[in-house]
Amino acid sequence: MRGSRRSDARGAIGVDPVVARLVLKFGGTSVATVEHIARAADVIARQREGGHEIVVAVSAMGDTTDRLVDLSSQISRRPARREMDMLLSSGEQVTAALLAMTLLERGIDAVSLLGHQVPFTTNSTHGRARIADVGHERLELELGAGRIPVVAGFQGVDEHGEITTFGRGGSDTTAVALAAAIKADECRILTDVDGVYTTDPRVVPEARRLERVTFEEMLEMASLGSRVLQIRAVKYAGKYNVPIRVLHMSGEGPGTLITFEEPDVESPVVSGIAFNREEAEITVTGVPDRPGAAAALLGPISEAEIEVDMIVMNAPREGCVDLSFSIGRADFDQAMEIVREAAAGLGVGDVLGNDRAVKISVVGVGMRSHAGVATRMFETLAREGINVRMVSTSEIKISVLVEEKYLELGVRSLHEAFGLERTGNGSDQ
Amino acid sequence: MRGSRRSDARGAIGVDPVVARLVLKFGGTSVATVEHIARAADVIARQREGGHEIVVAVSAMGDTTDRLVDLSSQISRRPARREMDMLLSSGEQVTAALLAMTLLERGIDAVSLLGHQVPFTTNSTHGRARIADVGHERLELELGAGRIPVVAGFQGVDEHGEITTFGRGGSDTTAVALAAAIKADECRILTDVDGVYTTDPRVVPEARRLERVTFEEMLEMASLGSRVLQIRAVKYAGKYNVPIRVLHMSGEGPGTLITFEEPDVESPVVSGIAFNREEAEITVTGVPDRPGAAAALLGPISEAEIEVDMIVMNAPREGCVDLSFSIGRADFDQAMEIVREAAAGLGVGDVLGNDRAVKISVVGVGMRSHAGVATRMFETLAREGINVRMVSTSEIKISVLVEEKYLELGVRSLHEAFGLERTGNGSDQ
Repeated sequence: MRGSRRSDARGAIGVDPVVARLVLKFGGTSVATVEHIARAADVIARQREGGHEIVVAVSAMGDTTDRLVDLSSQISRRPARREMDMLLSSGEQVTAALLAMTLLERGIDAVSLLGHQVPFTTNSTHGRARIADVGHERLELELGAGRIPVVAGFQGVDEHGEITTFGRGGSDTTAVALAAAIKADECRILTDVDGVYTTDPRVVPEARRLERVTFEEMLEMASLGSRVLQIRAVKYAGKYNVPIRVLHMSGEGPGTLITFEEPDVESPVVSGIAFNREEAEITVTGVPDRPGAAAALLGPISEAEIEVDMIVMNAPREGCVDLSFSIGRADFDQAMEIVREAAAGLGVGDVLGNDRAVKISVVGVGMRSHAGVATRMFETLAREGINVRMVSTSEIKISVLVEEKYLELGVRSLHEAFGLERTGNGSDQ
Repeated sequence: MRGSRRSDARGAIGVDPVVARLVLKFGGTSVATVEHIARAADVIARQREGGHEIVVAVSAMGDTTDRLVDLSSQISRRPARREMDMLLSSGEQVTAALLAMTLLERGIDAVSLLGHQVPFTTNSTHGRARIADVGHERLELELGAGRIPVVAGFQGVDEHGEITTFGRGGSDTTAVALAAAIKADECRILTDVDGVYTTDPRVVPEARRLERVTFEEMLEMASLGSRVLQIRAVKYAGKYNVPIRVLHMSGEGPGTLITFEEPDVESPVVSGIAFNREEAEITVTGVPDRPGAAAALLGPISEAEIEVDMIVMNAPREGCVDLSFSIGRADFDQAMEIVREAAAGLGVGDVLGNDRAVKISVVGVGMRSHAGVATRMFETLAREGINVRMVSTSEIKISVLVEEKYLELGVRSLHEAFGLERTGNGSDQ
């Protein structure tokens, strides 16, 4: 059904010219104003050419969610989660109604639906509810009647009829879950970029749009702060085998297809260079080399719900080790305080902090079968005089923590070293 | 249970000091900002002193509904009614969530509820749905658990799970219906005035707040444009015997109680002077005095859904009559066009229009048993040189149409003639 075929016509990218089922998701930027909503309606009208069946998922308009969060934070530092869900879910409701109105005004039959009307049944964890079931009867009924369901994203309903939400970016999850429920041929995420790139084009102008990327790679990139897709949506898509296509909100261009298919032998070893600017590192020197010492330092950190990413301990010397770990920059001050206290309790050496670190990662499913990626990565960085402070690896990713000042140089040199630039060995453009 | 007792303590006006059930309704002005919502929470906290059980109904914040209507009108001149309900109902949802949050932040247990969660079951007439049933189980459950249900006003749900709304001012109806469902002792409408007055204090500074007013009188005043209470809410309250108290949003003062009780013999004959500025009149001269001629003129008006209020026809002279009728000023231009066309078709005389008319009404259940109200009314107006152009009467109301320039003079002289001023025969203040 799906292939690597190029865009042959508007609205029929990569999908056979028979009638297809498509879910289209419009993010907050693409529905920020009534004019944006009109343009979204244009895109929907084009995408359904050829008789395709369309279900739409929408986010709240522009900064609506931020404004509602701001109101709540004037009331409480920790507003009741149930009431936050009640509050925030109103944003998507407004967009769904306005977009349905716009479609109807053009003679395109449409109907807005809220989370409890579809329904999206979830557990009761307000603020980050998990979807238990998506009803498809109402959707099938509307599609059968020739209508376009315009579904308010981000929201569901628990077994008691309470409104729940899926957390920030939850409309991506809505779209993917809708696609799974109606067995859509593709879930198309319309956004402000025209696809997934080998790296951020603002850092490397030669960055190239990927024609396709695997779910595993996308997960690694999403977790590294690539803002194209919410990580939960990608996981959900993987679970239900939903093909996702990321494309520009204009609906033009083939975008990037996120597939389950393993790359063939000719695929590049490395697909992209991801990075995350907001890192920090903490090092404790002179930690006694005995069981429990590291736990005594890191335990209070995880108790404070601060996520520790990389951890490095050097070989013991004179009965002591140095312990280093990386955390998100926003948690730096709190983490320093906690570690200083814990270190004082242990009576160990110095606590050193650096909140100007960044993480650069080389990602690619091809590196499973290819040795030498790490070697090339370290050689490249060394050649540029970039000191690697920590390393972590997964099956399809190697990440290094470096000084913030080396971010652009590091990303650019790795992008070139792995031949990712526009005129390189890529298959696209 | 309820008496004419004065306010003895904050939150216990006119209600026995045993535990009472109260519905409190906050309009858009009283929840316009987070600061207003905080003040509403203060009022709720005081009103529940003594262990009273409270259910709250809220409108959308400030001009939210207007802003949403404006968005929809950018999309369509006649937006789909179902989608309008989906759109507008989000406004009350936001207020309910923010107010519940505010109460919770102060340690007052509260829970916001939407129309479909109560539920308010309605017919499917989007935009002006009629309530078929209000479920009390959920409300009783919340009250039993010591929680304050904060209900989003103005909205219900039809048998298909579609969101419906009750029309402008529908939150009053929500409040009254809630009071009926939980058999509340009083439904308190908190608004920007401190009660119902003998007339508009901006026109007559001596206007006096009424301690009580009957439902019949309130209906006449509401239909005359007194903006204190939505007419449908008053009708609903009459049907279910729900006592309503209109009071200031600060919760201070006894306000005005709207009762079913017939006034005793010592009650004043006239309770108030109501008026409506937005009137217009049309006169057709030389209409043939034969069956169907008047219908041929007025028929097209009602077909255009223009409401005709007063109609006057003089005695025939030379086989002809003059036909005059009054309409709302907003319909004047359209009505003139229609009547000119109809008159041309009939080949009758002139069509004269005046869009600077106003209606003044004397209202009071006491006039049922007292003759002479009309006489005193006409004498008073004649003494001031005010020409009465049309008259209409009901059992408890006499209305006259006069030139706009006489509005203030007419209202003031009638207010005085019927002894309604502050130091007059009233029982209050």
